[in-house]
Amino acid sequence: MPESLAYAAQSATSPLAPFSIDRRSPGPTDVALDILYCGVCHSDLHTARDEWGGTVYPCVPGHEIVGRVTSVGNKVSKFKVGELVGVGCMVDSCQHCKPCADGLEQYCDNGFTGTYNGPEQSGGGNTYGGYANQLVVRESFVLRIAHDEKQLAAVAPLLCAGITTYSPLKQWGVGPGHKVGIVGLGGLGHMGVKIAAAMGAEVVLFTTSAGKRDDALRLGASAVVVSKNADEMAAHAGSFDFILNTVAAPHNLDAFLVLLKLDGTMTRGGAPASPHPSPGVFNLIMKRRRLAGSLIGGIRETQDMLDFCAEHGIVSDIEMIRMDEIEEAYARMLKSDVKYRFVIDMASLKQAA
Amino acid sequence: MPESLAYAAQSATSPLAPFSIDRRSPGPTDVALDILYCGVCHSDLHTARDEWGGTVYPCVPGHEIVGRVTSVGNKVSKFKVGELVGVGCMVDSCQHCKPCADGLEQYCDNGFTGTYNGPEQSGGGNTYGGYANQLVVRESFVLRIAHDEKQLAAVAPLLCAGITTYSPLKQWGVGPGHKVGIVGLGGLGHMGVKIAAAMGAEVVLFTTSAGKRDDALRLGASAVVVSKNADEMAAHAGSFDFILNTVAAPHNLDAFLVLLKLDGTMTRGGAPASPHPSPGVFNLIMKRRRLAGSLIGGIRETQDMLDFCAEHGIVSDIEMIRMDEIEEAYARMLKSDVKYRFVIDMASLKQAA
Repeated sequence: MPESLAYAAQSATSPLAPFSIDRRSPGPTDVALDILYCGVCHSDLHTARDEWGGTVYPCVPGHEIVGRVTSVGNKVSKFKVGELVGVGCMVDSCQHCKPCADGLEQYCDNGFTGTYNGPEQSGGGNTYGGYANQLVVRESFVLRIAHDEKQLAAVAPLLCAGITTYSPLKQWGVGPGHKVGIVGLGGLGHMGVKIAAAMGAEVVLFTTSAGKRDDALRLGASAVVVSKNADEMAAHAGSFDFILNTVAAPHNLDAFLVLLKLDGTMTRGGAPASPHPSPGVFNLIMKRRRLAGSLIGGIRETQDMLDFCAEHGIVSDIEMIRMDEIEEAYARMLKSDVKYRFVIDMASLKQAA
Repeated sequence: MPESLAYAAQSATSPLAPFSIDRRSPGPTDVALDILYCGVCHSDLHTARDEWGGTVYPCVPGHEIVGRVTSVGNKVSKFKVGELVGVGCMVDSCQHCKPCADGLEQYCDNGFTGTYNGPEQSGGGNTYGGYANQLVVRESFVLRIAHDEKQLAAVAPLLCAGITTYSPLKQWGVGPGHKVGIVGLGGLGHMGVKIAAAMGAEVVLFTTSAGKRDDALRLGASAVVVSKNADEMAAHAGSFDFILNTVAAPHNLDAFLVLLKLDGTMTRGGAPASPHPSPGVFNLIMKRRRLAGSLIGGIRETQDMLDFCAEHGIVSDIEMIRMDEIEEAYARMLKSDVKYRFVIDMASLKQAA
């Protein structure tokens, strides 16, 4: 395979810049694609700057990938050249442990291979992600896209932000008759509002910014609560079946736990670099509440999510950027100044590189 | 009803001492009993000393009560004079909310009435607990005892320590094929070991005291892990279906969360006066683990627990004390110097008072 163009960080402190990478030659079960768009996830920034530790440099981020198939191995049966496809946060896993067998590759007992900064299952290499013009992925980690092609850029964020919110909503059985809270209206939160509403739940959006009220209602929330307002919060005490908390910054979880009803669950999507203040045990005990975690979603579930979103006309609200605007996009993302996901138009890579 | 003898705290700093209380005259749906034995729960001490706040003085603790029925109201159908009965942590609730209708009186939307220091459902009085020679309770909060009468003293702790461990084990479906951890071998923990083993689970006891190993094995654990030993802990990483954490003192929850397998749950029984160090969000996310709470159990479930324990020959391991030894018992309890529950022989109250 010829050299691919990419954008990489060379260290935790260096800005992303043009870089050439070698993609592997497609094997019999591989799909090769031209990347058309790639969403910009907060994890990209955490990893590029080594905020979670463990980043191997050079680092090419990007795991909200959509593109067009350019070639397939001779054992590939599900995809054809020219089709639109997506690749999310994983490109491989052991494929033989129980979680893999159950379609929960994200919990692979032997560790899944992240789309970037992931140790390859064999060979010991480190994966390069979607800030690039080409990608080679084994078929079983490639997703079909049923959306209309003109929505393609806005589909990209579904591959991470979409599945990260869909999976816990699905796992905890959200549906009609449920009152669901979404905490935070960012990349994850705005997907959570759209998906929970499409699942039939009554959705309440919690935000620290009163200015997001109109947007939240437009996206599908039936009410918006400014979480700094104690009276507004108190009015919802003990009333939620489920809360999806997407805020990565450390914050007081108790303020939301007390809003859950008996047997209610709050899941955490965003992972802070430092811990939240400790949640009070009494708040869990008094209504048998649960604080739970959830990590992206399995491949089968990601396909279900994409199909669900296509059926319900759901895409991400995006701002398109050029590849060479990535550092500016990161800076704006840190200020929560994006509605609601940056997506890189990969046609710009050639000009930038 | 004549005056009852009791032991009460008059303030957060005064030792418990003899006190006379008025029990209400039994109404048509009430059961009156002579209290024969009362277990000593850590909550008694927390409340007597106002460590959780909200204690109304004088305070008569005690909610692990067994005794003999002395009279019944004319509408009481389930109990007869002379029968052995138990009363646990609750003596009343609203009886018309959804949790009450579901047999989950402990989560009554309007607040259950605690057996002591509980606001009465009408009249505004404050309840007095089982450190007394008599009790009047509405029939629907009285439990049948199927154990042999000579085990009666050791049945008392089932009314709180038993149901507090049984309920979460039952809720999360513990049974054969499950690997279950019990953290702490105190009043709650030793019941947790016995009950989880009787449910058919493989039980591992976590303790900070290597000296408790033999006892834990005798009680039903198949293995004992000294939780201060990082190697012993690491050997169990990601292997537990369920962990019941009974340790009230603030401690590092992460050390146990990482022992849960995919979709594993840890529930908290004991409630610390100050929070635990904050659990790490990554540990919840990475295997979709849950941290949950649980509060005693409903009346129907408490009866199920008593019947289950009678069927499996389960009682508490106890040390019998006289009523006037209660302060010494509290002091020893604070040093975890009890195997595994103090029970007051209420025949001693007359001499002490």
